[in-house]
Amino acid sequence: MPRSWFCREILRALSMSAMLLSACTGGRAQSGPSPLDGPLTIQAQGSFFVGGHDVHSDTLSTLPAYAPSGTVSVDQMYVRYQVPADVAGRPALVLIHGCCLTGKSWETTPDGRSGWDDYLLRKGYPVYVIDQAWRGRSAGNIAAIDAVKTGKAPLDQLPTVFAAGHEPAWAIFRFGPEYPKVFPGMQYPLEAQAEFWKQMVPDWAADLPTPNPTVPALSTLAKRIGPAVLVSHSQAGIYPFQVAAAGRDGVAGIVALEPGACPAPTDDMAPYKGLPILVLFGDYVDQSPRWAPRLALCRQFVAAANAAGGKAELVLLPDVGIHGNSHMMMQDRNSHEVADWMAGWIEHHVPRHM
Amino acid sequence: MPRSWFCREILRALSMSAMLLSACTGGRAQSGPSPLDGPLTIQAQGSFFVGGHDVHSDTLSTLPAYAPSGTVSVDQMYVRYQVPADVAGRPALVLIHGCCLTGKSWETTPDGRSGWDDYLLRKGYPVYVIDQAWRGRSAGNIAAIDAVKTGKAPLDQLPTVFAAGHEPAWAIFRFGPEYPKVFPGMQYPLEAQAEFWKQMVPDWAADLPTPNPTVPALSTLAKRIGPAVLVSHSQAGIYPFQVAAAGRDGVAGIVALEPGACPAPTDDMAPYKGLPILVLFGDYVDQSPRWAPRLALCRQFVAAANAAGGKAELVLLPDVGIHGNSHMMMQDRNSHEVADWMAGWIEHHVPRHM
Repeated sequence: MPRSWFCREILRALSMSAMLLSACTGGRAQSGPSPLDGPLTIQAQGSFFVGGHDVHSDTLSTLPAYAPSGTVSVDQMYVRYQVPADVAGRPALVLIHGCCLTGKSWETTPDGRSGWDDYLLRKGYPVYVIDQAWRGRSAGNIAAIDAVKTGKAPLDQLPTVFAAGHEPAWAIFRFGPEYPKVFPGMQYPLEAQAEFWKQMVPDWAADLPTPNPTVPALSTLAKRIGPAVLVSHSQAGIYPFQVAAAGRDGVAGIVALEPGACPAPTDDMAPYKGLPILVLFGDYVDQSPRWAPRLALCRQFVAAANAAGGKAELVLLPDVGIHGNSHMMMQDRNSHEVADWMAGWIEHHVPRHM
Repeated sequence: MPRSWFCREILRALSMSAMLLSACTGGRAQSGPSPLDGPLTIQAQGSFFVGGHDVHSDTLSTLPAYAPSGTVSVDQMYVRYQVPADVAGRPALVLIHGCCLTGKSWETTPDGRSGWDDYLLRKGYPVYVIDQAWRGRSAGNIAAIDAVKTGKAPLDQLPTVFAAGHEPAWAIFRFGPEYPKVFPGMQYPLEAQAEFWKQMVPDWAADLPTPNPTVPALSTLAKRIGPAVLVSHSQAGIYPFQVAAAGRDGVAGIVALEPGACPAPTDDMAPYKGLPILVLFGDYVDQSPRWAPRLALCRQFVAAANAAGGKAELVLLPDVGIHGNSHMMMQDRNSHEVADWMAGWIEHHVPRHM
């Protein structure tokens, strides 16, 4: 009996047994996305950089142990990805964090539940989590600091960098109207807020060009991994629209979670024609002097896009029966419910590719 | 025929088929660690912070849109982990990157091969990858920059921060004696060096207290996840020893890859008594004015530790038949061979816990 025949037969028996077993498990053991908890089978994972360029500087160091002159690479974007075992033609999702945060936003929630990176993977999507240029694992350039420190540049050449304090950030994240008041029915796990504050990092974006270097890097990424849905949050809200305006290659859709800005309704709407676009807001928006005007401007954009042949939609979560969401909806107690709703929207609006 | 009986029988058939199939695949399909490529089954994954504390500042911002006063969290350490399906009592591995780098060091190599984070996971180890305090996803404090910028602090209060230029870093990473010369037989994938340079980030460590805040965070982590082997690289080389000196709870062993420093031989050796310690160096060390003296000092430490009842060992890779390794041995072309050797050492010296 040849070994190859024997092995083929065994594989056939395995396959048949597995098929029969699926009757015992409701089909989950067989194919389709992984179960939403417990062991997870992934096809591939890894990380890489997109974009970036080299710059020479003579003020890289003030320490005798390290030379001040040399080349550094800046403006690159860090990307970590996981691809599930059974993609079944679903688009890749690129998760793009907002202000003062990193890709950590999408990982394990502050109260220890599965983050969207893991949850959406288990739902069958290839997931790509980025760190914006100059933040997290994507290096910024400190040469200006050392130039000022060594008297080679005037004080006003110091970078414009800020850190969001917990108290002023409270209302921006819409945990309540002002620190430390909490909106009634708030879904954010505030008992774990200390873990959330540790996610925050300084933001150097004010000195970066427009569009932010993250935008061309996202274009490159979409071309490389597409079809992809660009899922942005807050400060990054405008980025996917800037990507689409630069070229739609690889971009299968846009989900903008509480964008800091939508394109102006007077902008050219041609880049958005026929592109599935979801702008999603949480709860308490009308009580927020920061977010209410942004919501209004996004409504104008959606109307303008649709008047020009767009497929854009603006949804407030309370209008689809999901209540109590802060600005950090991917970490709220009902974050999986929000992810389910978003994934349903994607499944309905972005065709699978086979 | 009851359904539960049917399902049990099917599972038995599956199990038997799988056992037979293992004869076709050399046993890899059956149990034990995941195969070293292809689909990977993990039991759990996620990320969290360890350590950190809150500080108040009035110079968090120079932008009108963001308040200058508030509380920020600093000194925390970001940790990402994956636990494989079949740990079988193996210790957790904590991978601690070196100077001017982040946890990215251990991920996909610049030339696109499986990083040690993925490779060691596939070998059956729970893997924890950290970003040192003030680097990557672990936030630093920029308040001093804005204090100087707004005239509230003198120029010399600017932080001591440096970036390693490619050219001066070349010899430190031991790609060759000096930029751009290459040691003969060099295993580093220099054709992909652009991707490596993008991994580098500014280093703020000079202003941090001793021990670096990463050290108490590693102690906390080891207590939480141990038994763990602390695997450090380069600048972080001394950290695991500082952890052990502060308390051995959760620390099952130390692997120091080309440590920037070992404990002084005159230090108290009691903390290291009976603890499995491996100090591992690559190739060309005798040709490096930077690394040769460090190797010599580590030899003195190992001798002193063993004289005091230690179980320390110093190994040069060429002495065990592995040649051509740079300072970045976890990314060299033979990185999996190095990982195999290290894992073999751990398996031999650090008892499994059942």
